[in-house]
Amino acid sequence: MGAERFGLSFGEIPSGETNRITDVPGVLVGHKTLCSGDIQTGVTAVLPHGGNLFREKVPAAVHVINGFGKTVGSIQMEELGTLETPIVLTNTLSVGTASTALIRYMLNQCPEIGDTSVTLNPVVCECNDMRLNDIRGLHIGEPDVLDALHSAGKVFAEGAVGAGRGMCCFQLKGGIGSASRRLVFDGIPYTLGCLVLTNFGAMKDFLLCGAPVGSFLAKNLSPQEDKGSCIVVLATDLPLSTRQLKRIARRAGVGISRTGGLCSNGSGEIALAFSTTNRIPHEPGAAVRTCSVLAEEKLDEVFRAAAFATEESIVSSMLHAETVTGRGGVTVKSLLDEYPGLLREFPQLAPQS
Amino acid sequence: MGAERFGLSFGEIPSGETNRITDVPGVLVGHKTLCSGDIQTGVTAVLPHGGNLFREKVPAAVHVINGFGKTVGSIQMEELGTLETPIVLTNTLSVGTASTALIRYMLNQCPEIGDTSVTLNPVVCECNDMRLNDIRGLHIGEPDVLDALHSAGKVFAEGAVGAGRGMCCFQLKGGIGSASRRLVFDGIPYTLGCLVLTNFGAMKDFLLCGAPVGSFLAKNLSPQEDKGSCIVVLATDLPLSTRQLKRIARRAGVGISRTGGLCSNGSGEIALAFSTTNRIPHEPGAAVRTCSVLAEEKLDEVFRAAAFATEESIVSSMLHAETVTGRGGVTVKSLLDEYPGLLREFPQLAPQS
Amino acid sequence: MGAERFGLSFGEIPSGETNRITDVPGVLVGHKTLCSGDIQTGVTAVLPHGGNLFREKVPAAVHVINGFGKTVGSIQMEELGTLETPIVLTNTLSVGTASTALIRYMLNQCPEIGDTSVTLNPVVCECNDMRLNDIRGLHIGEPDVLDALHSAGKVFAEGAVGAGRGMCCFQLKGGIGSASRRLVFDGIPYTLGCLVLTNFGAMKDFLLCGAPVGSFLAKNLSPQEDKGSCIVVLATDLPLSTRQLKRIARRAGVGISRTGGLCSNGSGEIALAFSTTNRIPHEPGAAVRTCSVLAEEKLDEVFRAAAFATEESIVSSMLHAETVTGRGGVTVKSLLDEYPGLLREFPQLAPQS
Amino acid sequence: MGAERFGLSFGEIPSGETNRITDVPGVLVGHKTLCSGDIQTGVTAVLPHGGNLFREKVPAAVHVINGFGKTVGSIQMEELGTLETPIVLTNTLSVGTASTALIRYMLNQCPEIGDTSVTLNPVVCECNDMRLNDIRGLHIGEPDVLDALHSAGKVFAEGAVGAGRGMCCFQLKGGIGSASRRLVFDGIPYTLGCLVLTNFGAMKDFLLCGAPVGSFLAKNLSPQEDKGSCIVVLATDLPLSTRQLKRIARRAGVGISRTGGLCSNGSGEIALAFSTTNRIPHEPGAAVRTCSVLAEEKLDEVFRAAAFATEESIVSSMLHAETVTGRGGVTVKSLLDEYPGLLREFPQLAPQS
Repeated sequence: MGAERFGLSFGEIPSGETNRITDVPGVLVGHKTLCSGDIQTGVTAVLPHGGNLFREKVPAAVHVINGFGKTVGSIQMEELGTLETPIVLTNTLSVGTASTALIRYMLNQCPEIGDTSVTLNPVVCECNDMRLNDIRGLHIGEPDVLDALHSAGKVFAEGAVGAGRGMCCFQLKGGIGSASRRLVFDGIPYTLGCLVLTNFGAMKDFLLCGAPVGSFLAKNLSPQEDKGSCIVVLATDLPLSTRQLKRIARRAGVGISRTGGLCSNGSGEIALAFSTTNRIPHEPGAAVRTCSVLAEEKLDEVFRAAAFATEESIVSSMLHAETVTGRGGVTVKSLLDEYPGLLREFPQLAPQS
Repeated sequence: MGAERFGLSFGEIPSGETNRITDVPGVLVGHKTLCSGDIQTGVTAVLPHGGNLFREKVPAAVHVINGFGKTVGSIQMEELGTLETPIVLTNTLSVGTASTALIRYMLNQCPEIGDTSVTLNPVVCECNDMRLNDIRGLHIGEPDVLDALHSAGKVFAEGAVGAGRGMCCFQLKGGIGSASRRLVFDGIPYTLGCLVLTNFGAMKDFLLCGAPVGSFLAKNLSPQEDKGSCIVVLATDLPLSTRQLKRIARRAGVGISRTGGLCSNGSGEIALAFSTTNRIPHEPGAAVRTCSVLAEEKLDEVFRAAAFATEESIVSSMLHAETVTGRGGVTVKSLLDEYPGLLREFPQLAPQS
Repeated sequence: MGAERFGLSFGEIPSGETNRITDVPGVLVGHKTLCSGDIQTGVTAVLPHGGNLFREKVPAAVHVINGFGKTVGSIQMEELGTLETPIVLTNTLSVGTASTALIRYMLNQCPEIGDTSVTLNPVVCECNDMRLNDIRGLHIGEPDVLDALHSAGKVFAEGAVGAGRGMCCFQLKGGIGSASRRLVFDGIPYTLGCLVLTNFGAMKDFLLCGAPVGSFLAKNLSPQEDKGSCIVVLATDLPLSTRQLKRIARRAGVGISRTGGLCSNGSGEIALAFSTTNRIPHEPGAAVRTCSVLAEEKLDEVFRAAAFATEESIVSSMLHAETVTGRGGVTVKSLLDEYPGLLREFPQLAPQS
Repeated sequence: MGAERFGLSFGEIPSGETNRITDVPGVLVGHKTLCSGDIQTGVTAVLPHGGNLFREKVPAAVHVINGFGKTVGSIQMEELGTLETPIVLTNTLSVGTASTALIRYMLNQCPEIGDTSVTLNPVVCECNDMRLNDIRGLHIGEPDVLDALHSAGKVFAEGAVGAGRGMCCFQLKGGIGSASRRLVFDGIPYTLGCLVLTNFGAMKDFLLCGAPVGSFLAKNLSPQEDKGSCIVVLATDLPLSTRQLKRIARRAGVGISRTGGLCSNGSGEIALAFSTTNRIPHEPGAAVRTCSVLAEEKLDEVFRAAAFATEESIVSSMLHAETVTGRGGVTVKSLLDEYPGLLREFPQLAPQS
């Protein structure tokens, strides 16, 4: 939903209808949240479209901003430029389980995989939620992943839900955030959407719409090493090539920087971008097919949309998160619980005309 | 054991004591093989040293020759230049299970992971053994992975064992192969070892020590698309930086080409290289540590060793493999069963003085 | 000199003695400025040390933030991880001339190059100064490049000088900027320095220490496409490997983002980083040499230093630049000429306690 | 012309009409050769089409096999996926001069460059011909580059001509080689062509059509370090994306390996690939344009064509080269002068049915 309803604005490009990644036609998101005592974790699934992704792949790219991360599926995405499964987000130590569940989900849809056709490339991304979650317990089961996949829809919650349940951002509660932007080229409307899983940052560095809110709030928090991570998923219906999608994915880093993130050594900051246009059939009919592609000069507007949507998604993940108490009784407050007067009292956050 | 005992030679550099990757001091290899009817698969584990890899990491690099592959762990290896778990090889759809098993194996060794320290980066590589194995059945269980890890030693079998059980190379039986080379710099001896998992190639392209054996043998085999993969693990006790290890890893591609492999679209050809020297403590004592590094000019000899050891390992995987009957009763013959007179009758294979 | 003397501060890490890249011991910078009518261009040279760089190379890395740029020398730096010539900056169409001049400069120092030894890898970076300079005239001659190299010293000017003469930043005058940071590890002091050539940005996006100065100033400027570029050179005496230097170089992007830069399509944003420690002799005496390396965990502080020094250098390039009138009588104002009251009147720029 | 007329064959794919890169419709090649005493060098130009390349760019990619090389233009090709100038090949120390000449050539064609439009990205590749040429003398002048560009045509010489004049391959005379392959998809004919500049290899490693000719010939040559380089230019009229072209370019390495090349430390082995289809206008009319693209599965045949054409081009460069005496009276013999009976006497080189 982005951060619009809090009166904040991020860049000059209008947001999409619901300011979520699912404003991109066809894109679906589902969550499974586990929250019970020391177990504060979950799964989030992003589906580029509701059909059979193995048989109808989408162009995709991945960009590693800082590679202290365990995302799987990047090698094949890089080589072939396609995504052939949903993207699943979860905690770091559950990536294996999520991969296996995703494989079973696709095997079920496609009896030809591993029989008469080839195998498949599951894409799973992660952040480390050990501050609030008993990550050593490997509490995510395959059914949890399937639940997230099967619950996917156009409307989904942000904040401390799904894979974001146990994540922390700028030392306060982070998790899932989303935003979207509307773009028009030659009179035709397009959408670029973003979903983030936020788990990074030291509060002293936090910038809210450019305002140094973090240096103010950090006084109340004990200093903490910035060891987090951030996953950014960008979706669009613009006709973009894999190379162009990779350029878009790189602008996720600009969005992270705009929130004050400094890409620490221990951060797994990874961005994926896919287009729902120019789908690639697993069994091509003809040797040569036709596709459409946006002129390179038009990418500037898309770059801005990607940077602003990423920035807004990160802030949205914090504004929508609730305070969570987890592993060992540790409590991580939400931004609004930590500083209820934030949006009223911080002068720079007043709407900018 | 390489292919020496078959009278073949690959380059002018002498092989190590047993002509295996385990000639590199400290390196251990273990297998778990599943062979029963439609189930022809397994797990192979390569341990850079017998200690605690998380607490004492080794410098490492990965190079993607062709990325139609699902290797996990590459992003963090690329960023940090270290390997902090054993390398596990298995079939494509069991990568998730192997990752989870590897995580449990390391969690067991390190109570601090995910509690007071950070998480860990499991490295798992794969080839697709669906021609002989019921890969859809996901028959590898976590205990199989632990069995491979726990059985690791200096002596290990090659051929249709471990992860190589169901793999095919140049349309005949492939699997696990290994070789090593001895190098001397400034009077000090070093070893470079190689272990491959071979699952690639069309017979018509096969070159044995340069001899076009494949064009001869292909007449008896029905043509088949080359959709395979090849994993190459290079180990050394030479003091090499991550950047240098990446250069070494790239020479695996030369070795593959020397066997006639043409790096087809559907091939996941991935090379990893690690050094057992200059280990990196997880908890560094001092901010600055001292390490040793080989002069760049000396790499030429190491490059040759890597190329020749890879070439020999691939051939060794074929010469050591037995004929296997698997999924649906399909039989894939070994090279020596297909052509018993090969080493006698092919003129170019006579020992070259 | 950075932007300290204007009362601005960028991050919590103290700056070096003169807040210039030359605070890193041994580093030298020289300019040659051409300013006459339509000719507003020049050359800037950065020397990692005052000795023979071919015979005593330094570890180095390059990172491409956005590759709409013509920097030369990157392929070999990437492969070998070394810098063996000074870094020369100039305008886009003079890169060839600068390369040749740099080659002659090194041939003169090293009679063995191209005779008994190998050749050399000149490193030249560029931005496009066509808005103010008659770039089609190719006015840079080889003597200009030699002048810049020979005039290199520890004290150098910032702003509209050297390669920065004709460059524009956020639609106002940019050019050369510099800053430095002091770091201490295990009680030993180190320096990280930065020099930028700024030629990017749309004013509406400009952030000054987080304050949205650009959205205020943009009202007075006609909108302009952001087609610029930015070269960032980072130098340090920290013992960093090539891989670590590449990680440092990537943080230049964070610094650019902190000034509001959005990495447009047409921007050649390229960062180089080198260390003056662990120099590599062209003729190694022994096969194995010893070097020192900073623990990876300590990089966080270096990352912050790189991001803040880049941000400050960019601002410094603008604050030190004078208004310039060039090609076709076009005038580009300096930031302080455009908005003389900037530092007094903008509330967020008051010193932050 | 390839090596067909010598009775040799490389792979099963038929060659194009003249077995040259210029079999790809529109592609042109020109040389300028300097041969006088100590000066044995030159320039070769490859034009993707005869029109205005800046205004009508072609999709292109670059792959670095081993980066001890000084090719310029790679950063922008990588980012934008386009080639907007001819490709010029010359000796290492003349890259700057060739860049400037190429800039002038394009400025002359396009008055808008550097005035109302942007600048341009010259692409120049090199090998080091110092064994035969007084490379320190910088004997290539801008007019020589223009001569090569202006003399470009469909028919061109191979061997010790153009940029290949002073180059050595496997210790004998190398230089310019070329070959082509015909491909048919869905009944439509396409061509893939290759041009190489060869300057690499130790004779002991040389393989001719798989036959270990080098180990035989090496006995007569004093051992020499392999410090050379190889530039491979691949052209096609197949509709390939930049990502696909990069995959094609990577198969140049397979071709080099097939000749016995081992990618030594000091080798600048760089491959470029471009398609003449789906040209990109500098001033796009519409935001979205339509293009065609080959199905990924069909690439296997193209990969084979690229590997075989590269292998044949390298051999062709040696078979067409004449013996040359150059700098300091050094003579480098051609392969056929060194071993006149080669093609008759070497049993494995008899035509393979």
